Amino acid sequence: MKLKLTIAFDGTNYAGWQSQKNSVSVQQRVEEAVAKIFPRASRLQSSSRTDTGVHALGMVAHVEIPDDDLKMPVTKFALAINAHLPCDIRVMSAARCRDDFEARFDAKGKQYRYYIWMGTAMNPLLRQQAWHVSRPLDVAAMRAAAKFFVGRHDFKSLAGTRNYEMSSTVRNLTRCDFKRNGPLLTIIIEGDGFLYKMCRGIVGTLAQVGQGKIAPGAIRGMLAERDRRAAGMTAPAHGLVLWKVFY
Amino acid sequence: MKLKLTIAFDGTNYAGWQSQKNSVSVQQRVEEAVAKIFPRASRLQSSSRTDTGVHALGMVAHVEIPDDDLKMPVTKFALAINAHLPCDIRVMSAARCRDDFEARFDAKGKQYRYYIWMGTAMNPLLRQQAWHVSRPLDVAAMRAAAKFFVGRHDFKSLAGTRNYEMSSTVRNLTRCDFKRNGPLLTIIIEGDGFLYKMCRGIVGTLAQVGQGKIAPGAIRGMLAERDRRAAGMTAPAHGLVLWKVFY
Repeated sequence: MKLKLTIAFDGTNYAGWQSQKNSVSVQQRVEEAVAKIFPRASRLQSSSRTDTGVHALGMVAHVEIPDDDLKMPVTKFALAINAHLPCDIRVMSAARCRDDFEARFDAKGKQYRYYIWMGTAMNPLLRQQAWHVSRPLDVAAMRAAAKFFVGRHDFKSLAGTRNYEMSSTVRNLTRCDFKRNGPLLTIIIEGDGFLYKMCRGIVGTLAQVGQGKIAPGAIRGMLAERDRRAAGMTAPAHGLVLWKVFY
Repeated sequence: MKLKLTIAFDGTNYAGWQSQKNSVSVQQRVEEAVAKIFPRASRLQSSSRTDTGVHALGMVAHVEIPDDDLKMPVTKFALAINAHLPCDIRVMSAARCRDDFEARFDAKGKQYRYYIWMGTAMNPLLRQQAWHVSRPLDVAAMRAAAKFFVGRHDFKSLAGTRNYEMSSTVRNLTRCDFKRNGPLLTIIIEGDGFLYKMCRGIVGTLAQVGQGKIAPGAIRGMLAERDRRAAGMTAPAHGLVLWKVFY
């Protein structure tokens, strides 16, 4: 049978989601925990990869388990796997899914949230989950700039430099909203898919708009350039949370 | 001159606010950092003490500094002190105050916030800042119970057992509100003063109301008993944040 796992993690102590040589990844930890319960389980296939330091509340992955190995009701799976996970990773839910479910290819969209703390001193309770920007940002200007990102665009200028020659860099950004609560600014970004480091490129560029270094109207030209050097900075990883994957 | 410091800290790695032998306190760390800038500064006098593991966003303390030692404008103090603090403690602001200001005795009231995560699996991003209660609580019953706590009452039944014979255990609770955001429940508690562990006694008792173990109507009798054994459990320290002190 195939299981759909929804996984949350604090990315601070991991080299990102994907298994790597010489460093501990979230995927590796979850696969080890799953193997304690289901020794013949497949490897995990996830909806997304996340960079070192990026967090998740709703990462989705699927795993196959031989039917003969089922020793408990599905409702107990999450609890059983969590017993073998460190406290900075949790399976939030585990449910049986269709045999042809593919966490990556079936994803219709994703929501990311990015947290910025605007204050002279950083809030120590958020130090590993928000970017500290010591002067208040002009959120109105950021909102104006965000409108140019929303829609179907070629986001090559905002993405980390990878070899995209064979694949499209066009994505549909469906939402880029702001919530402000005192010094805490939350940017909610939704789209049908995201290029490598694209979210952090958007946030870094918006922050520079908020600092008055980039004009909101410059975003259109920036996208047209299809060159990373045309856009703003890449925001740090630790402010980003993969919030939800839509199917 | 006298300085009013507003201090935030992640209490996870400290034996509470107050300086103690054989363990590191927040007060000690702040005093050490202040002494790096002002070697002749007084000790810190704070509005409150907090238990091991309790956090703060708005702890207030005052400190006296000989006028001759001032080497920089007051606006630079917080930044200068923070340069000598670990990242889980921050002076959020430092301002000159009246010479007769007393952080403890001038406090008119305090606001605490308590975070509860209601879900089968704990949110790893909140694991050090929220209490994990694995089944949803009946928040309507908790609201009904909270009404009996609000007002001027003898809170001896809710406080940690200390020798209160010489002093009053009557306090005026001015607010006990709930905010729910999905599985995250925030309890906002305000009052003119709080007994030792009183906030955690109120939250633990409310949680047991939410679990159906205590009837909302039982609170009145519980207060009348003036005996810790009459009330519910003490909620864990790590869900509590000293949010603000009013002057």
